[in-house]
Amino acid sequence: MNLIYEHGGDIYGRKTELDFSVSTNPLGISEAVKNAYINSVSLIEKYPDNDCRVLRKLVAGRMNGDSKTKSGFAVLPENIFFGCGAADIIYKLVYAVKPKTALVASPTFSEYENALLSAGCIVRRFYLKEENGFAPEEEILNERRADIVFMCNPNNPTGRAADEKLLYELSEKCRAEKSVFAVDECFAELSDIASVSRFCRNAVIINAFTKTYAMAGLRLGYMIGDTEIIEKVKLISPPWCAGTAAQKCAEAALSDDGYLKASRAFIKSERQFLYENLNAVKGVKAFVSDAPFIMFKADKGLFEALSKRGILIRKCANFDGLGDEFFRIGIKRREDNIRLLEEIEKWQCR
Amino acid sequence: MNLIYEHGGDIYGRKTELDFSVSTNPLGISEAVKNAYINSVSLIEKYPDNDCRVLRKLVAGRMNGDSKTKSGFAVLPENIFFGCGAADIIYKLVYAVKPKTALVASPTFSEYENALLSAGCIVRRFYLKEENGFAPEEEILNERRADIVFMCNPNNPTGRAADEKLLYELSEKCRAEKSVFAVDECFAELSDIASVSRFCRNAVIINAFTKTYAMAGLRLGYMIGDTEIIEKVKLISPPWCAGTAAQKCAEAALSDDGYLKASRAFIKSERQFLYENLNAVKGVKAFVSDAPFIMFKADKGLFEALSKRGILIRKCANFDGLGDEFFRIGIKRREDNIRLLEEIEKWQCR
Repeated sequence: MNLIYEHGGDIYGRKTELDFSVSTNPLGISEAVKNAYINSVSLIEKYPDNDCRVLRKLVAGRMNGDSKTKSGFAVLPENIFFGCGAADIIYKLVYAVKPKTALVASPTFSEYENALLSAGCIVRRFYLKEENGFAPEEEILNERRADIVFMCNPNNPTGRAADEKLLYELSEKCRAEKSVFAVDECFAELSDIASVSRFCRNAVIINAFTKTYAMAGLRLGYMIGDTEIIEKVKLISPPWCAGTAAQKCAEAALSDDGYLKASRAFIKSERQFLYENLNAVKGVKAFVSDAPFIMFKADKGLFEALSKRGILIRKCANFDGLGDEFFRIGIKRREDNIRLLEEIEKWQCR
Repeated sequence: MNLIYEHGGDIYGRKTELDFSVSTNPLGISEAVKNAYINSVSLIEKYPDNDCRVLRKLVAGRMNGDSKTKSGFAVLPENIFFGCGAADIIYKLVYAVKPKTALVASPTFSEYENALLSAGCIVRRFYLKEENGFAPEEEILNERRADIVFMCNPNNPTGRAADEKLLYELSEKCRAEKSVFAVDECFAELSDIASVSRFCRNAVIINAFTKTYAMAGLRLGYMIGDTEIIEKVKLISPPWCAGTAAQKCAEAALSDDGYLKASRAFIKSERQFLYENLNAVKGVKAFVSDAPFIMFKADKGLFEALSKRGILIRKCANFDGLGDEFFRIGIKRREDNIRLLEEIEKWQCR
């Protein structure tokens, strides 16, 4: 069993009508991805391309595609490694780096710690503060050196993105101290947050098609880093971790710019709607979010009350530093968001 | 880069008309799997069931389903762990066991050694002898203890299955010496070879849907072992390694007994056809095979000659103990087999 195994999306053990526990793209898979999936039926008996030749070129092109590149690094196909979802990439990075010490900005996604602890690493936590809306603060720059530093940007479950200047300074600190600076950008593309590759020379980026393109079931994640770290990861990785259908769907997804733009606009507007309406409910406090989800505080017992109504949300009590009163919801379509808000209001005003 | 990265099925870097380098089920995916794949399009945006609840029950049922069970262990759902293909399972087993020493019956599938070496393990090889048709011999019982013993049954690339009595004795030796006895049965079901779970109490079995059901592109493998080892593997494994479509297709595959029976009969008959006709070609020696492929010796340069004709076969020179004159071919449909035989004959009689 994983050390802290509880995640969103486990609809298999319970009856769920509305799943707000996951934070994948609320528009669902695009028509282009749907077609690519169906058209790849004849390919599923073939071994996938272990080198993901087409896909690595497309991702490199995407990363370098606009003019924002400044002092960051140009992403080449050889800087990219594909695996079976972001969680797989996190474990592989940890097993390749073999860190003895790690620093994790906490509360955050539990799999960094699960991977680190399973590899015998000592994990230190830098606590993000509620009074600051869980935004990462400059004090992290005073932390003593660790072999690897994990940062989720925007952060899960808090939703907050770090300041670009702070990320830059942290990356320079890591560079000077020869630490690996791992930045999980799984939620960045849905929020139009610039990749750290734009302004940091030495970040190892973790990303996936899971959230951005609502492809959670196909398991496709990737890492972007210098070739030295990519080669280390290849050494500890079995072949063929990125499936044939996953690759084909990802190729289609990357060729469909309009979908991503529409998704960002949709999320921005619905997030604002949810944020305002959550904060209008008695006893609820929603935190400012830069992500396709919102964290909020409400009366304990909300999870169970909604669960009885067939609505699944994410309890945050198993995130270190958060209590029973913290919850996370993905952003869905307007009618579902209204339904959720009504149920939350019923609970708070019971 | 993997230490010895060369496998069959890499059709992406070259033009290939006929791919004999892979040894997946020559009947291809079944109608049931095809339908399950297409019907799961609406599910690919959901996270897969991390616990593979349905699938573990089905595999346990299959393993215990006939009356052959003797002194082996009954397979329960909690004895099963799913991952992203057999290669993924091999690496996870190695990283969970953390062996310092290993014994590998060689020549064999390179990923056992790749995984072991990447984890810093010392690998000893027990060489299978050509004069004995590469069948494992009793001398392996005299080998000194290792933390883990790997055996592929039937073996890849030689095609030979081990004697049941020898497997039993080796498993008892491992039990007495507290070694992990890992048996890769990826090719067993297509050949109607009994699983070691029938007669060994302590084997860790590696299997996959890749070969048996021609699902190479969907990446689904599994491990069967005692709950202690399964829990160890879970500790070092990220969540969601078995995708949604892969699970749905596997469920459909397991419900389709007729397909497996037809596949075995087809392979048996075509293997015999290929074996006889290969041995009838001047200068060719085909080895007796219990697998859905055949290894043979022919004049060096055959790979390149066939490659020019758009036919891909598996060179075996990168298997330790085999030279440039060893090749492996999967078993295909009759017309393709005839085409291959004709081309081999042309080369040998050039």
